[in-house]
Amino acid sequence: MTLFSKIIAREIPSYRIAENDNFFAFLDISPLREGHVLVVPKIEIDNLFDLPAEYLREILEFTRPIAKAIEKSFPCNRCGITVIGLEVPHAHIHLIPINSSNDLNFTQLKDRASDESLKKVQQKILSNL
Amino acid sequence: MTLFSKIIAREIPSYRIAENDNFFAFLDISPLREGHVLVVPKIEIDNLFDLPAEYLREILEFTRPIAKAIEKSFPCNRCGITVIGLEVPHAHIHLIPINSSNDLNFTQLKDRASDESLKKVQQKILSNL
Repeated sequence: MTLFSKIIAREIPSYRIAENDNFFAFLDISPLREGHVLVVPKIEIDNLFDLPAEYLREILEFTRPIAKAIEKSFPCNRCGITVIGLEVPHAHIHLIPINSSNDLNFTQLKDRASDESLKKVQQKILSNL
Repeated sequence: MTLFSKIIAREIPSYRIAENDNFFAFLDISPLREGHVLVVPKIEIDNLFDLPAEYLREILEFTRPIAKAIEKSFPCNRCGITVIGLEVPHAHIHLIPINSSNDLNFTQLKDRASDESLKKVQQKILSNL
């Protein structure tokens, strides 16, 4: 069972943002920027491009309102997307509010955010969702 | 008319990879890594998340075979995705073969590739598509 499946199953707590039958969105607890959200399918597929067709068709539609809420919640040009997937073998989309390409530069160190700050970020995004 | 619309209209030549009624894929002539492809909708919408629902549903399905061809064509862990969009106001997905998160680091300088090398990359991807 992947880390993300444990989060989806509530075996590991998370700062949940949105959920439907096929997808789950929650805060990255080591955000690259404030407002960093992960969107994951509820099935364990490593490579995003190996998802069944219905998942590939639906994932950006599920993501759209979350991206719009991120854009409303944090000062940014827009919500950027990155799919890397070299660490957890469970497809995931990173959503990050960006003002420059460095805001999507994953070679930067990511610190564990405090629970207090994560709770605030969660509430902000949920209030705009 | 955006740079990408001129490319789609053949007013500016490009190294075309794939095309259907709604999308166009071609090589980035200043690739971050060899095999760097851009996927763009044939309508001029700046922010990916402002695309009409049918485009958002179809774009990753259009992208899937291209990503798989990139993965076959270049030694890599997988095909990564980035959506930044701070330069050309026309939604686009970057597809790049990656082995590390630095392979998606857009703060790096990108040099214009030679036409000879772009032609080789195009042929390689097309042969695996």
